[in-house]
Amino acid sequence: MYELHFAVPMAGAILCTLNSRLDAAMVSVLLEHSQAKILFADHQLLEIAQGALDLLRERGTKLPIIVLVNDSDFSSPIRITSTTYEYEKLMEVGDNGFNIVKPQSEWDPISINYTSGTTSRPKGVVYSHRGAYLNSLATVLLFQMDIFPVYLWNVPLFHCNGWCLPWGVAAQFGTNICLRKVSPRNIFDNIIQHKVTHMGGAPTVLNMILNSASTHRKPLNHKVLVMTGGSPPPPQILSKIEEIGFSISHLYGLTETYGPGSFCAWRPEWDTLPPEERSKMKARQGVPHVALEEIDVKDSATMESVLADGKTVGEIMFRGNTVMSGYFRDLKATEEAFKDGWFHSGDLAVKHSDGYIEVKDRLKDIIVSGGENISSVEVETVLYSHPAVLEAAVVARPDDHWGQTPCAFLKLKEGFDQNAQEIIAFCRERLPHYMAPKTVIFLDMPKTSTGKIQKYILREKAKALGSICISSPLNCEKAVVDCSSKFRE
Amino acid sequence: MYELHFAVPMAGAILCTLNSRLDAAMVSVLLEHSQAKILFADHQLLEIAQGALDLLRERGTKLPIIVLVNDSDFSSPIRITSTTYEYEKLMEVGDNGFNIVKPQSEWDPISINYTSGTTSRPKGVVYSHRGAYLNSLATVLLFQMDIFPVYLWNVPLFHCNGWCLPWGVAAQFGTNICLRKVSPRNIFDNIIQHKVTHMGGAPTVLNMILNSASTHRKPLNHKVLVMTGGSPPPPQILSKIEEIGFSISHLYGLTETYGPGSFCAWRPEWDTLPPEERSKMKARQGVPHVALEEIDVKDSATMESVLADGKTVGEIMFRGNTVMSGYFRDLKATEEAFKDGWFHSGDLAVKHSDGYIEVKDRLKDIIVSGGENISSVEVETVLYSHPAVLEAAVVARPDDHWGQTPCAFLKLKEGFDQNAQEIIAFCRERLPHYMAPKTVIFLDMPKTSTGKIQKYILREKAKALGSICISSPLNCEKAVVDCSSKFRE
Repeated sequence: MYELHFAVPMAGAILCTLNSRLDAAMVSVLLEHSQAKILFADHQLLEIAQGALDLLRERGTKLPIIVLVNDSDFSSPIRITSTTYEYEKLMEVGDNGFNIVKPQSEWDPISINYTSGTTSRPKGVVYSHRGAYLNSLATVLLFQMDIFPVYLWNVPLFHCNGWCLPWGVAAQFGTNICLRKVSPRNIFDNIIQHKVTHMGGAPTVLNMILNSASTHRKPLNHKVLVMTGGSPPPPQILSKIEEIGFSISHLYGLTETYGPGSFCAWRPEWDTLPPEERSKMKARQGVPHVALEEIDVKDSATMESVLADGKTVGEIMFRGNTVMSGYFRDLKATEEAFKDGWFHSGDLAVKHSDGYIEVKDRLKDIIVSGGENISSVEVETVLYSHPAVLEAAVVARPDDHWGQTPCAFLKLKEGFDQNAQEIIAFCRERLPHYMAPKTVIFLDMPKTSTGKIQKYILREKAKALGSICISSPLNCEKAVVDCSSKFRE
Repeated sequence: MYELHFAVPMAGAILCTLNSRLDAAMVSVLLEHSQAKILFADHQLLEIAQGALDLLRERGTKLPIIVLVNDSDFSSPIRITSTTYEYEKLMEVGDNGFNIVKPQSEWDPISINYTSGTTSRPKGVVYSHRGAYLNSLATVLLFQMDIFPVYLWNVPLFHCNGWCLPWGVAAQFGTNICLRKVSPRNIFDNIIQHKVTHMGGAPTVLNMILNSASTHRKPLNHKVLVMTGGSPPPPQILSKIEEIGFSISHLYGLTETYGPGSFCAWRPEWDTLPPEERSKMKARQGVPHVALEEIDVKDSATMESVLADGKTVGEIMFRGNTVMSGYFRDLKATEEAFKDGWFHSGDLAVKHSDGYIEVKDRLKDIIVSGGENISSVEVETVLYSHPAVLEAAVVARPDDHWGQTPCAFLKLKEGFDQNAQEIIAFCRERLPHYMAPKTVIFLDMPKTSTGKIQKYILREKAKALGSICISSPLNCEKAVVDCSSKFRE
């Protein structure tokens, strides 16, 4: 995949790196939608590839050419029933004198990146050569990647085109370390063996590292800079991961902004703040990287910037070269996204007096209870401060009286056995009472391949609870539901 | 000047930062040629400004508006007889709500940079917004400028637009340290006081540091990265400056390439080479920075790339976004410079098997003796390895028999008193005899404001010597001329 990030654009073609965790049905839909001409498939994914091809054949769609990518680490007994080539054999007969096909315009597409599926239908986000070039440079600067970086690919290449780092790492003469499986043991082993200088990781990956068995960990004897984003990192995770020796940089962006477009520029004067205050500062962002024209928090109705008072909530919006060209074959969604000349992120945030931005919630994750907005992120932050909580996600549950109430989904750490009442009481001590969860459900979190919690699945579960008190297990390992209103003020 | 690098483009105007060492006559010519509308003049330079205005008035040219820049460090008794404003007072009445005037096209000019005068007539090199933007980012990466750099401006802002670092340092949230006078004491004092992380310096500045009084030096207790270029740095200077604690990065470029366009990307395996070999490697360059499309060594007649054999000499040529738009109001010179679609640097070089480039000479500095090309740089390198030599420059001296012979101009270190014969013998032990200087002249070097030795003045001096043996002092402090042909093989 790394080689193809150079070969495909140099052949004048367009990259479309599919999520390796998609099922055959979705792969067939995306092959069709992207109008892919060649499918490069790793042996580990042949079963899905074969399934997708079967579906295309059934639908009478022209099949792409298949190129099998062999790897000594993995082989598959599956045989593809289609026109196939083997990657390494193709390399052998390649033309060393091939003339690079340069784009006609720098605005020509270089890649299509399907959104990862926190929403139901993936959209094909188009990146241009110009945007990718600028974003590569900006990401290198954002990541403080000196010459000869060693980058560990915890965040997969299909995620926002690897934040354009396939090109950025090359521009800095770097080394790429790829893992077949992202696990704490693999991460620590590779950090030590290859002297990893940089890696990415969603907060859930950081959480996984923090909660890994001590036998899988190794002491870090050099600086490792970790770029985190994807969701606002809970302060508890931020401070703990720094305790074991990682340096954390908090980034914010979307597939539509070529990955991270904004970051928390750390101010030296924050070094001396108490740990909790430092974590709060680190959870902010809003400083655009050097290639992004503008990021702002705006009132979506009036398009005015919100007051920089740390309170007024607006929508985060972007514009600049490193914002997508549009959604492939979806003019309507593109026009909606770019209404009034700015890209609408769908994320709700406040702006602080120093100009930094703090994400409060996804537009669709906000909970409106009795006319009051409740930020699920704020409730989650309190939940993560509970020593028993491994993972937490809060969504709206329909309520006949209040409209919605906060519903918390939790996974506890091994050896803990808190119940819903204890958790709710813990939150009520630390939050306005209307913000404390009324419902607590314990389960294994549904996640995307990049480790993001799939809140839309949780929302469905919360919706299925209805407004009345139930106690069925809802396909969860263990479910405890509390819906008494006695806690309500 | 730093503030104006932001204010002028934001006002929709074009920067033209004049060399502060030019005389009134040249300033008047450049004010006229650039069609400047406003002249910002520091109090230290008022006499020259007044002289230039007087000349313009004599020629009946419309005078620019004058804005005086006051500085507590320096004041002048001179009163300008023209429409004048004071910078700080203008600031006070400035409009905080002023709307930035953005360029209509990113190819619009952002600055005109007159070449520094190693050639006789300055040409106005035009930089575009696009080129300056890309070069700013590329220079930050080239200089390995992490976040919060502290940059010491030894290389003046008028030189190649400060290598676009006024913008690059800002992009990295850096601090700028400006000196009224570049002296070893000022350099060391500021490095210590402000924790300077980066500075620039032509080899002559490095030489000045190396030969400074020990009382002016201070021990360096943090890393200071020095970017050197302008002429190929002699290996002796490179190794000595690293001994006292500076890290050296060797860059190559011209005003026409927005300053450095290529550098010596240091390979870790070179760390273990013997010091002399390491210096030789460091004197190479040829790795384009990330925003330069291409640098190559070509045969100017055929436009073919020269063999990468370390021997075949060709001309260094550039193309890409960070190559100038052209010479202002000089279409003929522009067309010549861009003949065959590449910018012709006028520098002669060889390409090594690993693709690195080694500058052999300026096209006009090459010495052709008995049909053989002699690289003045190679002879200078040998001269610099002599313990008595402080500065060395070699040019062609006309010769009836050989066409030209190498003529060395030297400045010896204090306390040394070598004569020409000793120097020539030293060279003959280390070079093919035809390459050893036939003439040695001791003098104070004529230099440009950026510290480059003005070889065209030396060439005139060598030409004035003629082909016969003379021994007049030639306006030099001390001149010893040797033109016997008995050394010739």
